[in-house]
Amino acid sequence: MLRFLTAGESHGPSLSVIVEGLPSGLAVREDELAGELARRRLGYGRGPRMRFEKDELRLIGGVRHGRTLGSPIAIEILNTEWPKWETEMSPHAGAPSTVLTKPRPGHADLAGMQKYGFDDARDVLERASARETAARVAAGCLAKALLARLGTSVLSHVVALGPEQADTGVRPGPADLEQVDASDVRCFNSEAERRMVSAIKAAAKDGDSLGGVVEVLVYGAPVGLGSHVHWDRRLDGLLAQAFMSIQAIKYVEIGEGAAGTARRGSDAHDAISWDAETGTYPRATTRAGGIEGGMSTGGLIVARVGMKPLATLNRPVLGTVDVVTKQETKSFKERTDVTAVPAMGVVAETMAALVIAGEAIRKFGGDSLAEIVRNHDGYLASLSDEPPSSAAAAGGV
Amino acid sequence: MLRFLTAGESHGPSLSVIVEGLPSGLAVREDELAGELARRRLGYGRGPRMRFEKDELRLIGGVRHGRTLGSPIAIEILNTEWPKWETEMSPHAGAPSTVLTKPRPGHADLAGMQKYGFDDARDVLERASARETAARVAAGCLAKALLARLGTSVLSHVVALGPEQADTGVRPGPADLEQVDASDVRCFNSEAERRMVSAIKAAAKDGDSLGGVVEVLVYGAPVGLGSHVHWDRRLDGLLAQAFMSIQAIKYVEIGEGAAGTARRGSDAHDAISWDAETGTYPRATTRAGGIEGGMSTGGLIVARVGMKPLATLNRPVLGTVDVVTKQETKSFKERTDVTAVPAMGVVAETMAALVIAGEAIRKFGGDSLAEIVRNHDGYLASLSDEPPSSAAAAGGV
Amino acid sequence: MLRFLTAGESHGPSLSVIVEGLPSGLAVREDELAGELARRRLGYGRGPRMRFEKDELRLIGGVRHGRTLGSPIAIEILNTEWPKWETEMSPHAGAPSTVLTKPRPGHADLAGMQKYGFDDARDVLERASARETAARVAAGCLAKALLARLGTSVLSHVVALGPEQADTGVRPGPADLEQVDASDVRCFNSEAERRMVSAIKAAAKDGDSLGGVVEVLVYGAPVGLGSHVHWDRRLDGLLAQAFMSIQAIKYVEIGEGAAGTARRGSDAHDAISWDAETGTYPRATTRAGGIEGGMSTGGLIVARVGMKPLATLNRPVLGTVDVVTKQETKSFKERTDVTAVPAMGVVAETMAALVIAGEAIRKFGGDSLAEIVRNHDGYLASLSDEPPSSAAAAGGV
Amino acid sequence: MLRFLTAGESHGPSLSVIVEGLPSGLAVREDELAGELARRRLGYGRGPRMRFEKDELRLIGGVRHGRTLGSPIAIEILNTEWPKWETEMSPHAGAPSTVLTKPRPGHADLAGMQKYGFDDARDVLERASARETAARVAAGCLAKALLARLGTSVLSHVVALGPEQADTGVRPGPADLEQVDASDVRCFNSEAERRMVSAIKAAAKDGDSLGGVVEVLVYGAPVGLGSHVHWDRRLDGLLAQAFMSIQAIKYVEIGEGAAGTARRGSDAHDAISWDAETGTYPRATTRAGGIEGGMSTGGLIVARVGMKPLATLNRPVLGTVDVVTKQETKSFKERTDVTAVPAMGVVAETMAALVIAGEAIRKFGGDSLAEIVRNHDGYLASLSDEPPSSAAAAGGV
Repeated sequence: MLRFLTAGESHGPSLSVIVEGLPSGLAVREDELAGELARRRLGYGRGPRMRFEKDELRLIGGVRHGRTLGSPIAIEILNTEWPKWETEMSPHAGAPSTVLTKPRPGHADLAGMQKYGFDDARDVLERASARETAARVAAGCLAKALLARLGTSVLSHVVALGPEQADTGVRPGPADLEQVDASDVRCFNSEAERRMVSAIKAAAKDGDSLGGVVEVLVYGAPVGLGSHVHWDRRLDGLLAQAFMSIQAIKYVEIGEGAAGTARRGSDAHDAISWDAETGTYPRATTRAGGIEGGMSTGGLIVARVGMKPLATLNRPVLGTVDVVTKQETKSFKERTDVTAVPAMGVVAETMAALVIAGEAIRKFGGDSLAEIVRNHDGYLASLSDEPPSSAAAAGGV
Repeated sequence: MLRFLTAGESHGPSLSVIVEGLPSGLAVREDELAGELARRRLGYGRGPRMRFEKDELRLIGGVRHGRTLGSPIAIEILNTEWPKWETEMSPHAGAPSTVLTKPRPGHADLAGMQKYGFDDARDVLERASARETAARVAAGCLAKALLARLGTSVLSHVVALGPEQADTGVRPGPADLEQVDASDVRCFNSEAERRMVSAIKAAAKDGDSLGGVVEVLVYGAPVGLGSHVHWDRRLDGLLAQAFMSIQAIKYVEIGEGAAGTARRGSDAHDAISWDAETGTYPRATTRAGGIEGGMSTGGLIVARVGMKPLATLNRPVLGTVDVVTKQETKSFKERTDVTAVPAMGVVAETMAALVIAGEAIRKFGGDSLAEIVRNHDGYLASLSDEPPSSAAAAGGV
Repeated sequence: MLRFLTAGESHGPSLSVIVEGLPSGLAVREDELAGELARRRLGYGRGPRMRFEKDELRLIGGVRHGRTLGSPIAIEILNTEWPKWETEMSPHAGAPSTVLTKPRPGHADLAGMQKYGFDDARDVLERASARETAARVAAGCLAKALLARLGTSVLSHVVALGPEQADTGVRPGPADLEQVDASDVRCFNSEAERRMVSAIKAAAKDGDSLGGVVEVLVYGAPVGLGSHVHWDRRLDGLLAQAFMSIQAIKYVEIGEGAAGTARRGSDAHDAISWDAETGTYPRATTRAGGIEGGMSTGGLIVARVGMKPLATLNRPVLGTVDVVTKQETKSFKERTDVTAVPAMGVVAETMAALVIAGEAIRKFGGDSLAEIVRNHDGYLASLSDEPPSSAAAAGGV
Repeated sequence: MLRFLTAGESHGPSLSVIVEGLPSGLAVREDELAGELARRRLGYGRGPRMRFEKDELRLIGGVRHGRTLGSPIAIEILNTEWPKWETEMSPHAGAPSTVLTKPRPGHADLAGMQKYGFDDARDVLERASARETAARVAAGCLAKALLARLGTSVLSHVVALGPEQADTGVRPGPADLEQVDASDVRCFNSEAERRMVSAIKAAAKDGDSLGGVVEVLVYGAPVGLGSHVHWDRRLDGLLAQAFMSIQAIKYVEIGEGAAGTARRGSDAHDAISWDAETGTYPRATTRAGGIEGGMSTGGLIVARVGMKPLATLNRPVLGTVDVVTKQETKSFKERTDVTAVPAMGVVAETMAALVIAGEAIRKFGGDSLAEIVRNHDGYLASLSDEPPSSAAAAGGV
């Protein structure tokens, strides 16, 4: 069982994550973690904070001499701007210099203040901020490292940004990730990329923000992750929660998703074939997104994740109420990006990797990397064995 | 903490569900359970099984003299067709009369056979079948009973069926549920209903199947269910998993969902206002679907859930492979419906009710109904109290 | 991950258990389940109910043609006395003929009434009763079946009954279980058995009850179940919870337990040796009870579990208060046994088997019996391989 | 739901803990955390490390201006000796200067090496070390702070050290904690204290170690924590796991525990009385240890926790095998204490506080301190209300 907890406020001294349940013997390198965190800052249209964030890392548990010990892994991501915030966000007795009483529509501010009994929106927004995803990305980097040893890789690319969509006829493969990351908006289609950048420029000029959609692709996942036997073990359900839990996500689909709901059944599924050479049952299409009956089919896993436009704008247009005076007003402003969709893709990869790795650990067991790989390989080998003779004898239907 | 396990195969002797974590003192009536199970069989386009299924119930634990004891509640839903299946599905030593070796695309069949080492698809499909949702609906009926005592109600209506869509400008309220259920396709718009029925007839004639989309509405949920503080406590994530875990669901959105991703931020959020009379902060729009920062806002919760067309067709068109001979063939046929979208709405209500009730229990605690209601009411009363003077003193921003 | 929920009241229509997480392909026979349930009724000093309880079983999910499907397994254990209780315990609206308002000291009665807001102790005691352990035993029988396939077996024997103790110098092995069960008090020492039976007779004559201590032995558990890496993964902690959760248990120890706390460190541990033939590290002693650092060592696991004397007596001596009148009185009387220690041993075996099987599933993964056995065997084989050369090169200390 | 994860190796840069599920508005002071950590170092017979350990703290999440935010709380406890260990325990690529190949009996060393595939015992022992309990104590300090606001306090005192026992006739109350901590061995009986110190001196002289027993007392816990309704919700089971999970614990008992198993039922329970003034049902005895039916009774909770003598000795007497050469030898030596029993008591308090606080959060719900206190107080008030008239009408038995 893979589990993790994150902690830390957006402008606190640091973020922290503890990941429990990874096998021993997995190579972990700080520069890989740093590289993955840098990917989370990618994308045209990010605000100045992305430049300040250097994501200084500390590996404080679970790793010795470059590989995991099987014990919980703790990673701290320091806030390089902490000196500026030390008073405002101090853990020690004190008081805020400014109390934020004009909650922003579209944010956790108001519901959080009511739920937790706060009169200062900062007590909510500091944790609700997407800065928290840096801690998830660190955890996800470990999950990706494990998956790599099982032949599985996860990537994402932007397929819609604001009103601009990209044709998804050609999907990037594992080898194309560098090219996707090199794109200003993490789009695999350069014509669409140009349109998206223009849309961002236009929104920026108006002090406005943009949402969009990312496609997540998982290559090489073995057949049989997740399960049909109980609702909370279905892989699509686990992925849906993981994606929807990302800040500002309002929409998740697997395979053809919404489009598929309008098809007829005769035209909505992936025919099964047989490849004697590999001993597998390939599909020519990905309508089901690589998940049938809540289980991975062994084919490409495809999901799309949609993000609403950021609710913090660079101009004050969103109507709200001051919770003290009850007067109508405009919401306060925190420094913000025009869009975070390209970066959100990296977070969505992270969540997919954590889910898939968790299910792989569940299926293959194993406390050391060698053991999980041995079990994984033994399972794959068993799949291409001859069918049990009982079936042959009974005569199939 | 509310938890439940379901068991039982589609053609086994019965389905079973155990629900743990409900308070004592909640009124439970078998006819209400039966009524809710009957709603799961609603909808034009269901196959003959829906008529056989009488869903005979047995309440075998946790309820005494018509109210809950706080102990786990066990409900058994008998399969009235069991005598016909007793040999084929016997728990005792024996053998199947027919081995299903031609897995159906779009179903759990193939992945399940590989994962669990079966050579007979029936060993998978019996559990993967949506018949299992009857057990969930029984559990959900208990959750709805609790929510009713907290002033919260859940309903659903069909907004798309195959290619036909319904205008969702006018949403049914809690009082309209009977009208929705009376519709042949559980659609609140009679013009769209006619088109949908026609589409079903056309598909039936072709031996084909249809998917569609349901909108789930939660009225009266208090502000502050779910939480922004940790990814796995976000209400939208919990709902997304619960919905996506329903058989054949490929798509989930909250509020404006996909449409909202293409808007600009200035036009994508729900302005906050103040209603002095009720002491609440109402919103005129439902773009966020009643969830901000992973928490309920106190407004209407809106989600849409999309189902692919059923993968079991009444004519053999889906290409597959016989797992024994490895020859290409058409998949076997189980008795099926043309569409199950209207019924799926009832299951989606169920999953929403279980999630919302679970979060209410988490927030309000309480072992008896009286205690949870007292805590709930105390919380709501506290929200309309005067703001803490500290905020007033510091001067809001 | 192995999980299970039980439901049902002592005099309700039946008990129910759902077990989720067992692999497919495991042989399950109703007569083995019935046999294990019959063992739970063993022991001199049981009341008449033990004769009424026939534990009629129904396997209603998860098993087809004599082996598991990987899906949740549901078992119902019918109450053969139900007709007598149908009115008093009806799930339908009605009222008790008698309201029990004189809670028994030592039982859940009073705390349960206060927690759940009841005025009738029956609303508590029906679930708090040890009758519930029949459902656990059914689940545990499945766990034992899995463990048997991994070469692991669990047994118990009574080592103290009331004031009478048995010398535990000679422990029963797996082959001795029948002999233990044949003993009137499930004691492996016939001299002690005689003393124990006399003690029971004496207590019975006085209308009194007796407690005692059971030793649980797990043979053949592989090294490395549980883990030192996190507090809630320690095998001893998991066992302690499982044992202490049995009704009336007040005391759990591993290995030498209490006696070991008074030793010096030089005399309190199990020296490690090497057996080249088996490639294992045997220990001549069992002071640690086969668990070091929260992990199984590969040796015999030894635990002792102590039960207080039953709090329901056949004569009214325990002082209590009528919760309505607040007058001092004697507690009401339910039909009872003089002692349930011999039977408790079977329940303790059950809980041990569920914990050990759960940890085996966690370590070895696997969705089918073949897969879990393959992974288990691969692990054991890897342990007797040559040590990694790196250690040899570095020069051990 | 209260949950927490700890991370960090004994000689790593720091320990880390994240606690999720505490309400907002709880006062947290670093000096209180530091004070509690200092208590964990108490006791005659500790080695030199206890003087080096200053337990420098960093509060890195979840606390702002001296009170909790409801978000996860992260605490880092720095290892002041880190510079000495930086190379040996570096997370970066490298190699140990010394490979420990002679596992110590009684420790996690050998089982951990086999489970995780290590050839260096340090890869296991660093995490298995009781140093990890410092992270638990930090978490427990937060739990104690919450309990204090609910009128509940937890303390411990040593009742046996090696062969020396203390009369437990007089138990320390909440006000006596300072006196207990001032004792060299955290014993409330000065005569026994003297004998215990002598025993430690004698063992120290022989290079040997001592175990012992601690009694944990919880004052002021409300009636109804835990539950009889499901095995894994019983308070005694939860406490047993929590205690047994502490390093070197082999023995847990509730109330009279082992001694009670030898009594007769007429003499083994706590008679119930009525106190009209407080509206409670007090007991004159604590035989059940304040837990009946898996629930707190509202009385004093009493548990005893037994620790085996430390397995690391200051002289090499424990026989082991070099895992490389397979030669018999003596186990390697880490710096150690003669006894850690007095400090273990503080860890046992910690685990009790975490369990009790977790159950209080479960019962009372609430996201802010004000809400949980309001719910708690409302529950207590409801208990002393008049009994429901239905009971009076029916006529109690």
